[in-house]
Amino acid sequence: MSQTAPAPKKTRGLEGVTALDTELSFIDGQKGELLYRGYDIRDLAKNASFEETAYLLWKGDMPNQAQLDEVTADLQAARPVHSDLLDHLRHHTPKDANPMAAMRTALSMLAAYDDEADVMDADANYRKAVRITAKLPTLLAAFDRIRKGEEPLAPKQTGSTAFDFLYMLTGEEPGPAAEEIMDAALVLHAEHGLNASTFACRVIGATLSDMYSAVVGAMGALKGPLHGGANIEVMKTLIALDKSGETAQEFVDRKLEKKEKIMGIGHRVYKTLDPRAVILRGMLQGLSEEKGEMKWLEMSDTIRQTVKDTKGLDANVDFYSASVYYLLGIETDLYTPIFAISRMTGWTAHLLEQWEDNRLIRPRAEYVGPRDKTVAAVADRG
Amino acid sequence: MSQTAPAPKKTRGLEGVTALDTELSFIDGQKGELLYRGYDIRDLAKNASFEETAYLLWKGDMPNQAQLDEVTADLQAARPVHSDLLDHLRHHTPKDANPMAAMRTALSMLAAYDDEADVMDADANYRKAVRITAKLPTLLAAFDRIRKGEEPLAPKQTGSTAFDFLYMLTGEEPGPAAEEIMDAALVLHAEHGLNASTFACRVIGATLSDMYSAVVGAMGALKGPLHGGANIEVMKTLIALDKSGETAQEFVDRKLEKKEKIMGIGHRVYKTLDPRAVILRGMLQGLSEEKGEMKWLEMSDTIRQTVKDTKGLDANVDFYSASVYYLLGIETDLYTPIFAISRMTGWTAHLLEQWEDNRLIRPRAEYVGPRDKTVAAVADRG
Repeated sequence: MSQTAPAPKKTRGLEGVTALDTELSFIDGQKGELLYRGYDIRDLAKNASFEETAYLLWKGDMPNQAQLDEVTADLQAARPVHSDLLDHLRHHTPKDANPMAAMRTALSMLAAYDDEADVMDADANYRKAVRITAKLPTLLAAFDRIRKGEEPLAPKQTGSTAFDFLYMLTGEEPGPAAEEIMDAALVLHAEHGLNASTFACRVIGATLSDMYSAVVGAMGALKGPLHGGANIEVMKTLIALDKSGETAQEFVDRKLEKKEKIMGIGHRVYKTLDPRAVILRGMLQGLSEEKGEMKWLEMSDTIRQTVKDTKGLDANVDFYSASVYYLLGIETDLYTPIFAISRMTGWTAHLLEQWEDNRLIRPRAEYVGPRDKTVAAVADRG
Repeated sequence: MSQTAPAPKKTRGLEGVTALDTELSFIDGQKGELLYRGYDIRDLAKNASFEETAYLLWKGDMPNQAQLDEVTADLQAARPVHSDLLDHLRHHTPKDANPMAAMRTALSMLAAYDDEADVMDADANYRKAVRITAKLPTLLAAFDRIRKGEEPLAPKQTGSTAFDFLYMLTGEEPGPAAEEIMDAALVLHAEHGLNASTFACRVIGATLSDMYSAVVGAMGALKGPLHGGANIEVMKTLIALDKSGETAQEFVDRKLEKKEKIMGIGHRVYKTLDPRAVILRGMLQGLSEEKGEMKWLEMSDTIRQTVKDTKGLDANVDFYSASVYYLLGIETDLYTPIFAISRMTGWTAHLLEQWEDNRLIRPRAEYVGPRDKTVAAVADRG
């Protein structure tokens, strides 16, 4: 195919271009609606656990009791990681490493300890999806404890992903409220169509490369400040604002006047309301009241309302999740890897879907450079 | 934006869709033409070294003597790797690891030893492109020696990338013929538009994630048998054929009759001739005559000619590169990571280009699943 005919400019960044079919999620950006396999996100956040959501994404529908018991047991059983991984986090991972970079390396390394890493049948790939999803919380909690000079904790291998992760992170079994909020946050972040990390994941998977290669690429994409890194930026902004003495109203007026971007507001797909933001705001309100610490909610609400009134842009998923994690006592730089713990289910479900009917994903570029140049002797070059 | 309107089917796999503009390479699949920044690949393979090609891709034009001296010195200086990387390859990398998986992990880990890993200005990103390109050959040679029970060799830090890589791999300084062929192979594989690994690289980079994250994702994509893994499959096929007693003609007739794919033949972009295959065939002929070992060339030519006459498909870059590496005495499973050593220049050049005028790359998916489902109590599920 010749690359001389210019393509319409509107495909730049592939905005509005349909790359593939999916049964995983439906987003209506006008209505502010998000479905996972036909279930509304508001229904799932209220009535389904992260384990049920993972099963739904991987297998196509909600599990019955026997299926739920099995996937829960499989996830619990797979939580421990090989001691070499802990050695790597202790001795070959700098204490000040970017947590997403550290998890990218750890996930890549994990493949070497999985006998099925390069086995590409659907059953083996499902088992890998379970294993990788189960092990990432263990790796992240171990990384955080080691950098603080504490010993990593083995998973209890009981209870939910949210329960065991908070236990490994803090050394204390979480109360029901904290576990419930973490569980709901994991449900809310699990899947969101062809966002950049999921798209990278499918592009890599479509070469028939393995699941580890694809999710490691996805981790790299989620690390970017235009994608998963945004929730960290939201919290940094709120903390800086709190210290500055400026009111939230002064802050947002100043940002709008300078036409500066406010992190956590606006989304390429949602033109009005991100339904996840509404649910997270509710969670933040409950948590704020429980902790007697209303300032993050109040600052956030002022910023959100002002931008909405002025520019018609509303909060996205990152806007309230930041304060939720902050009130749970989680280090700011772990917000993006926690997003990854959840999204791992969506990434791996997209890979299972991709491999059911695989097709290489390879667009083309339009060449806009020079032609007809010839290599001169080095002495004759300018 | 609503996702209800079905998009034309032709965008599936993004075939024929233009995702972005580039000044890096031009491919005319009908004419069998490939340009890097305006220079014909045949001109470059004959008249430019890998170092000159790397500079061309990164900086926009061929280097003059001072520029060539500088980039060569920078590449030589950056070849050594931190001893922790060698420890990792010795103690935390299984001897039977997939070399692409091992290099994916090693590259990801390398970020932790680069103070500029997360510095996103253009100068720092250029320096990282040089460093990553310089270190991958060292890591790959060390991996190969360690798995054979040999001590890894420090780079000599003199001469070309091809020279030092072959030295570190074999323990002997290569002769001029071997160095020249390896150098030309590196030139030929350096850049090729939005192939799947380069596209994954740009999708990751477009989130403003860092260069390591992006090239680690690209490694994962290149690992796939539908992409960089193909050159390994070509050689496995030739070796199996050689052992089978079947003639090349019988083999290819049998494959065509069964409508089975022959690796290394056909390409999504080149509809007639891949110019790189022609150059590599010439290199294989010279090397075969020098070694007095003509059978790989003869088998390859018979297969190629028959498929061309029957199906109109011609050899691609992987078809002759496999036998070239084989006659250079390189282990079959290193062919894809050697491809990566070369393509690292293209990947990093694409990132530098992406970040000059960044735009998130995010297509959409068409939802084809159910709607209006509601979460039932677990006891009521089927």
